Amino acid sequence: MPRADKMHLGVFYWPGGHHVAGWRHPAAETDSPFNYRRCVELAQLAERGKFDLFFLADLVGIRPSKIEAQANASRAVYFEPLTLLAALSTATDRVGLVATATTTYNEPYHLARKFASLDLINDGRTGWNLVTSHNQAEAANFNRDTHMAHADRYERAEEFVEIVKGLWDSWDDGAIVMDKESGRYFDHNGLHFLNHRGKHFLVRGPLNVPRSPQGHPVIVQAGSSGPGRELAARTAEVIFTAAETLKDGQAFYADVKQRMQKYGRAPNEVAIMPGLFPVIGNTEAEARAKYDYLQTLVQPDVGLFLLEHLLGRDLSMYALDEPLPDLPEHDGAKGRTEVILRQARRDNLTLRQLYLQVAVARGHNIVIGTPARIADVMEEWFEGHAADGFNVLPPVFPTGLEEFVELVVPELQRRGLFRTEYEGKTLRQHLGLPYPKSRHTTAAADSVSLAAAEDAEVDAA
Amino acid sequence: MPRADKMHLGVFYWPGGHHVAGWRHPAAETDSPFNYRRCVELAQLAERGKFDLFFLADLVGIRPSKIEAQANASRAVYFEPLTLLAALSTATDRVGLVATATTTYNEPYHLARKFASLDLINDGRTGWNLVTSHNQAEAANFNRDTHMAHADRYERAEEFVEIVKGLWDSWDDGAIVMDKESGRYFDHNGLHFLNHRGKHFLVRGPLNVPRSPQGHPVIVQAGSSGPGRELAARTAEVIFTAAETLKDGQAFYADVKQRMQKYGRAPNEVAIMPGLFPVIGNTEAEARAKYDYLQTLVQPDVGLFLLEHLLGRDLSMYALDEPLPDLPEHDGAKGRTEVILRQARRDNLTLRQLYLQVAVARGHNIVIGTPARIADVMEEWFEGHAADGFNVLPPVFPTGLEEFVELVVPELQRRGLFRTEYEGKTLRQHLGLPYPKSRHTTAAADSVSLAAAEDAEVDAA
Repeated sequence: MPRADKMHLGVFYWPGGHHVAGWRHPAAETDSPFNYRRCVELAQLAERGKFDLFFLADLVGIRPSKIEAQANASRAVYFEPLTLLAALSTATDRVGLVATATTTYNEPYHLARKFASLDLINDGRTGWNLVTSHNQAEAANFNRDTHMAHADRYERAEEFVEIVKGLWDSWDDGAIVMDKESGRYFDHNGLHFLNHRGKHFLVRGPLNVPRSPQGHPVIVQAGSSGPGRELAARTAEVIFTAAETLKDGQAFYADVKQRMQKYGRAPNEVAIMPGLFPVIGNTEAEARAKYDYLQTLVQPDVGLFLLEHLLGRDLSMYALDEPLPDLPEHDGAKGRTEVILRQARRDNLTLRQLYLQVAVARGHNIVIGTPARIADVMEEWFEGHAADGFNVLPPVFPTGLEEFVELVVPELQRRGLFRTEYEGKTLRQHLGLPYPKSRHTTAAADSVSLAAAEDAEVDAA
Repeated sequence: MPRADKMHLGVFYWPGGHHVAGWRHPAAETDSPFNYRRCVELAQLAERGKFDLFFLADLVGIRPSKIEAQANASRAVYFEPLTLLAALSTATDRVGLVATATTTYNEPYHLARKFASLDLINDGRTGWNLVTSHNQAEAANFNRDTHMAHADRYERAEEFVEIVKGLWDSWDDGAIVMDKESGRYFDHNGLHFLNHRGKHFLVRGPLNVPRSPQGHPVIVQAGSSGPGRELAARTAEVIFTAAETLKDGQAFYADVKQRMQKYGRAPNEVAIMPGLFPVIGNTEAEARAKYDYLQTLVQPDVGLFLLEHLLGRDLSMYALDEPLPDLPEHDGAKGRTEVILRQARRDNLTLRQLYLQVAVARGHNIVIGTPARIADVMEEWFEGHAADGFNVLPPVFPTGLEEFVELVVPELQRRGLFRTEYEGKTLRQHLGLPYPKSRHTTAAADSVSLAAAEDAEVDAA
């Protein structure tokens, strides 16, 4: 029996495109990655395509090593995502706006406040992609000589997200009354202090921003390692994942939805959206030729650099055209690494073959073909419970997104798999996610904790 | 001889207005402080008035004590400034946009990146008001039980701003080439690592955002204590200050411009803009009546709370209607406190008189009168070298700004004291500030430090 719900679509924007050499394609945008008007056009295009969301990744650094390789790729420079999304909020009306921000080098109070402000500005279209950082280059920008161990990062992330969610409930709905007559600006009984004292953070609160139109921003995660899946099962409302085969997708999907049970969460409280890297042609042959042409544009140093980045290790000592070396376990992004290496061994790839096959789309599902063929794969994954939707990674911007909106979206709509018009106004409504009640809604007013906080305040400054 | 240059004007937005009870005025905006469209209207109004800049203050917390008093004032909740300004960037075309962000609870890499991104989005109209935090409520949100000592905060701020300026010079102009043919996205010789290792921070860099249309955002400061003035003399391009008399204004002005010499800076490299709190009427009597009416709206607990906040100490043990008690030195915001207390003793005020006189405008210069009278005072301060311009604090929003734009601005223009049209496009051009060259412009490429950074990278992750 086909699913009664519809699939969800995100577009992951990356200057130039997601194919590692996409920016070199003649049809790729040629202006600077800091052309704001270009970003507006793409977000508006996603909105015309009725996409659920427009997504931005992030890294807080540039690696000092292999700088020549990075200089040949479009991966190093881009707008800070929260700043860009705040601006795009005013240029779009319906599409959700999701920014990545790391829990490893931020403070929960700052992030809670910025995302809540953004959600108020764009009337409830905001999402936060919560990540942890395992990159040496990022650590070096934040007072550390080495990056945090995997377990510590996840422990910190877990505490971080609980604080952020707590801060988002600082104010009861309607507590800001602004009654000129009585002189009451807000009702202080509707204000809740967090008084968090944990292992990684002390945060008293309250946030100086109220709850937003969707209760709070949608929480997005991408973790695919064990601790990453656990954190996602516990807190994520959208999961971006990478799976190259239907079987891998189904296994991940079943595992996460099963893990949610122990946190008292229903399966439909998370939308699982694996990456989809579509190469679209009017015929299969045209699509294949388009892909092959993109592959000719890949510079070996760039391919190897991105593979190193994906696997989290130096590969420069290995020969490009010999079988894959034995690579020891390490502390990088575990889940994604395992997927990639397992597939490479299965197919007996060399390093060069691996970067050409995997690094170009960073382990995401590459589908090459006609719009109907791409819709077939999406339908198969959706109906086969490997996906609730897809985060689309066009190989080239803007043409890859234009083609998807003009050719694939209508095909999905014809099949009844995707909306023809936005049903709601907020990102949460687009995704069919429940509205989160405040943790204080059913409890009595926390006048006790407020009194405790006053006692704890030893000076008045 | 009258000055050859023109004065500069900023508007300091605060929901409801700057008078402590302004929000209760019948003409005050009645919608939520989180009504984004209202903010757009005000920023556009400032632009119609040819203001140099639109300014937002910030505090990262709400005090748990005296919550009932805060509940009667419009001071506790508002949009996070950087998020709001990014959105306003798209709704305005010329007016400068200045956000406050603290150096005490932020990381330089994050702030450098967000302000640079904002400056690229709004084509060079961004300013950063650099402050230090001395509020217990802020400390408690950032893992601290007590706030940082005054000297430590300024030492940290000094290191912070040097790092931010260094990060803003990470890229030479034109280093992002995006040459599809050769496959070169950026010229790595135009990329500079900071490699900062100081007392408070380790920041390797480089920033993943290039230099912006105005070289870098304009640096604004408000410090009026000794260390505050020194930091401002060394790094500020705009100084917001509070002075209630012409003489105080002149003394501050002369002191800062003199301090700049030892840092090799010319006097015109800083615009000094004291706060101006204008109460405008068609006649003197009408203006006075307007002010008196606002004063009747002040609730005693709010007045005292704000005075406590300004002076950085608890005053609840003192009688409201007796002479000012003897208040010992402490570690809060020193400069502003001294100004306020000196004046109160001079005029032999009670606590109630002091909060009614000072707290309503937080120590800024209150001018009550006709548009001509207000222009007279502004002219006197400008020609008397007490000010290069003013940061205008309307007692009530939106009417206070509307009156200023409709009545005072034309009077200043008639006198030749203020522009009738924007001369340039960037905030830096509005303010007549020099374009900052990159620190790497004259030096040879820093290939040595790049090589050193590569050696220092022990892992490839």
